[in-house]
Amino acid sequence: MAVQTVASTTDSVNLGPAAALSCRECGHRVPLGPVFACEECFGPLEIAYDFSGYDTEELRKRIEAGPANIWRYAPLLPVPADVADKPNLNPGWTKLVKADNLARELGVTGGLYVKDDSGNPTHSFKDRVVAQALEAARVFGFTTLSCSSTGNLAGAVGAAAARAGFRSCVFIPHDLEQGKVVMAAVYGGELIGIEGNYDDVNRFCSELIGDPAGEGWGFVNVNLRPYYAEGSKTLAYEIAEQLGWRLPDQIVVPIASGSQLTKIDKGLQELIRLGLVEDRPYKIFGAQAEGCSPVSTAFKAGHDVVRPQKPDTIAKSLAIGNPADGPYVLDIARRTGGAVEDVTDEQIVDAIKLLARTEGIFAETAGGVTVGVTRKLIESGVLDPTKTTVVLNTGDGLKTLDAVAGTGLTATIRPTLDSFREAGLA
Amino acid sequence: MAVQTVASTTDSVNLGPAAALSCRECGHRVPLGPVFACEECFGPLEIAYDFSGYDTEELRKRIEAGPANIWRYAPLLPVPADVADKPNLNPGWTKLVKADNLARELGVTGGLYVKDDSGNPTHSFKDRVVAQALEAARVFGFTTLSCSSTGNLAGAVGAAAARAGFRSCVFIPHDLEQGKVVMAAVYGGELIGIEGNYDDVNRFCSELIGDPAGEGWGFVNVNLRPYYAEGSKTLAYEIAEQLGWRLPDQIVVPIASGSQLTKIDKGLQELIRLGLVEDRPYKIFGAQAEGCSPVSTAFKAGHDVVRPQKPDTIAKSLAIGNPADGPYVLDIARRTGGAVEDVTDEQIVDAIKLLARTEGIFAETAGGVTVGVTRKLIESGVLDPTKTTVVLNTGDGLKTLDAVAGTGLTATIRPTLDSFREAGLA
Repeated sequence: MAVQTVASTTDSVNLGPAAALSCRECGHRVPLGPVFACEECFGPLEIAYDFSGYDTEELRKRIEAGPANIWRYAPLLPVPADVADKPNLNPGWTKLVKADNLARELGVTGGLYVKDDSGNPTHSFKDRVVAQALEAARVFGFTTLSCSSTGNLAGAVGAAAARAGFRSCVFIPHDLEQGKVVMAAVYGGELIGIEGNYDDVNRFCSELIGDPAGEGWGFVNVNLRPYYAEGSKTLAYEIAEQLGWRLPDQIVVPIASGSQLTKIDKGLQELIRLGLVEDRPYKIFGAQAEGCSPVSTAFKAGHDVVRPQKPDTIAKSLAIGNPADGPYVLDIARRTGGAVEDVTDEQIVDAIKLLARTEGIFAETAGGVTVGVTRKLIESGVLDPTKTTVVLNTGDGLKTLDAVAGTGLTATIRPTLDSFREAGLA
Repeated sequence: MAVQTVASTTDSVNLGPAAALSCRECGHRVPLGPVFACEECFGPLEIAYDFSGYDTEELRKRIEAGPANIWRYAPLLPVPADVADKPNLNPGWTKLVKADNLARELGVTGGLYVKDDSGNPTHSFKDRVVAQALEAARVFGFTTLSCSSTGNLAGAVGAAAARAGFRSCVFIPHDLEQGKVVMAAVYGGELIGIEGNYDDVNRFCSELIGDPAGEGWGFVNVNLRPYYAEGSKTLAYEIAEQLGWRLPDQIVVPIASGSQLTKIDKGLQELIRLGLVEDRPYKIFGAQAEGCSPVSTAFKAGHDVVRPQKPDTIAKSLAIGNPADGPYVLDIARRTGGAVEDVTDEQIVDAIKLLARTEGIFAETAGGVTVGVTRKLIESGVLDPTKTTVVLNTGDGLKTLDAVAGTGLTATIRPTLDSFREAGLA
C-alpha cells in the first residue's frame, strides 16, 4: 500500500530521490506534498528517500564534478535533477577552515576546523534551507514565499524569492530594530509588521496557512518544513567531503529548534549507508546559550523531554524556548556519546572575540555559542582534544554588531611620531 | 645591468613569477622589495613577471585543478608556489551571477553577469589585495601589517593578520562611527584613533614609514602597494574562467584610486598573451559617484589629467578625490572604447534596491554605483545591450546599511486575517 502511494507520487512530483513523507514518530507514509504533520499521530513528517541504484564510486565522482554549491549533492536532496539550472542563490560549499591558531589556544591537537557558513549569499546557513524550500515551492506551484522571522531567515527568504521570481511576504513584529528591518526590506518583497510580539506573529501565520487567503503561499518553515529542514544535511555532506570523505570525530552544532543537529546526523548516516565514508563512530555535541538552554538543561538532568524556557540571551538566532526537535537532539547526543552544553552571554562575547583574533572569522552570536561551548567542553574533559573536531559557525558578525559593541580603539594619539612613541606602539 | 639585478633578486626573494619591480612611467627596473616609487622619476612601481616557459594547456589544467580561491592563479601572481599551504583567508572564486532578472529590467539581451565580491571572507574585494600584500610581507620579514582606512580595508587587514599570525595596527580617524570601529576592532589587533581627519591619518602613516619606529611594518597600500595592487588581477582571471575562458565584451568597474580597473585590464591582457583566452576586443567602463567624479569629469572633458575634487557622496569606499591611477584609467577607457560615467547618490540607492529585488544581492554603495552607471550607459546608448556585460559588486550592503535606511515595512497590520485582508495582501 505504502509502496503504491510512493510510486504514484514519484510520477507526479519530481523531487529527485525524495520518495515520500514519513512520520518520524509512527512511520506512517504519505505522498510528497506541502504538509508537515502526520495525519495519524501529529508527529513531524520528514523526507524518505529512494537511494537504491546508486553506485558509490559513480556517485562520488558525480558529486565531485558538480557545482561549488549545495547542488553538487542534488542526488541526495529533495530537488529535481536539473536544480542547478534554475535561478536560486546557490548557497553552500562554504569554507571548512583549519583553525590551527584557535586549536593552539584551546589545546586541541587532533585537528580543529570551523565550518564557516557566514560565506553564504545572505551570510547565514538559512540560505541552505530556504533553497530547498524554494525548490519544493516551485514544484508545488506556490507563487508566494513566506516566513515569520526576526533575523537571518527574513533576509534569506527575501533574497531567494527575488532571484527566483517569487513574490515574498515576510512577517515580523512591527517594532523590530531599524537595522534588522532594513536587512529584510531591501530585497523589495512585502515586509509586514504585525502589531504584537513574535508569538503573535507565529500564531497569525498558522491561521493564514489554514485560510483560503493563504492559498498559493509557501511558508518555508511551516508547510514546506519537511523540505526546508533537509537543507541542513548539506552541512554534513560538505564537512565530510572537505575532510577528504572522512567523518570528523566530534562536531559542535548550535541548537535553536534542534532541527539542524538532527539533519546533520541524518546526513552523516546517509554517507555511511551509501559507502561514501568509512563507518566509524562520531560524537555530536549541541551548543546553547545559558539564557535559552532547555535542551542542555534536559541533557544534564538526564531527562527525555524538554521543558520550555523563556529566552533571555544575546544569541537571538538561537532563542527558541520550546525547541521542536529537542527530544531528538537528546537522543542523538546520547546515542553518539556527545553532550549538550551552554555558555553565558559573557562567554559568548569572549568566544566571538577569540575566533576573530585567532582565525580572522567574525561570527554571529550563534558562532560565539559553539566556540564557547567547545572551549567549555574541552576544559571539562568531555570533548577530546586529541580528536578531529569541527565547530559550526552558522552566521555573520555583521548582523549582530551590538554583541561586541564594547570593542573599540586600543589607543588614541595625535598625528605625530612623538605621540606614537609615547603610546608605546613602536 | 637590469638583468643582473633581477637575476640576483629572483634568487633571494621567492615571489613566484614576479621578476622585478618596473616603473610604470619610465620602465626603470629594480629588484623586488618593499618600495613603491621609482628612484629615477617617482613614478609608481609595479610587478614585472617572467611567464616564460608556461605551456598554455598545462597552465589551464593547473589552474582548473587548483583550490577554489585566488591561489588557483598562483602561477600568475607575486606569491610563492606553495602559497595555498600558508595560513591566510583564501579569498576569491566568488560567484559570477547570471543576472537574467536584472538584464530584463535593463534591456540587456547579450548576457548580463554580476561578479559578486561580497562573498569574500570579510565581504569586500579588499581581501584579494590584502592577501597579496600579506604574502609579500611574509617574504620581506615584516611582522606588523598596517594600513589607514575608514572602512573595508581595516577589516580585511585585521582579519588577514589575525589568521596569518601577524601583529596588525590599523589607523583611523578617532571620531569614526561606532559601527565601523567595531568591524575593525573585533579582530583584536591594534586600532589607533588619530586626532585629525583622514588626510591627517595618511600624512602620519607616511611619516611612520620613513621613521625607524616603522621598521618591520608593512603598510599594505603604501610600501607593499605594488604587491597589494596585483590582487585585483584575480577578478579578471575569475571572470574569464567563469565565462568558460572567454573575455566579456564589456566590464563595468568602480573607480576609487583607479588601481582596480587598471589591474583588471592588466589581467585580461595577460590571459590573452598566455593564450588562455581568444584575443578579441573588450571594453572597460569606469563608474564613479557624482559626488566624487574626478575621473569621469576628465573623461567627458577629453582631458588626460585628473583634477582633484573634494568628495561628497554616500559611496564612501569610492570617495578618493585625487585618484592616483586616474590618468591610467582614462587611457584604458579610451583605448578599449569604453567610457567613464557617474551617478547621483539617489541613483546609487535606486540601483542598490534594483539589484536586491531582481537578483537577491545586497550590495554596498560601490555596487550601487556600478549598477547605476550600467543603467545610465545603456540608456545613453554607450553600453551595447546585445553584448556580454559583467558588472562588479565589490562590497556588502551590510556595511553600508545607512544608505538604504529609508527602506522599511510595506504594511503594518493587527495579527488577524481580517486585518490582513483589509490591507489587500491576500
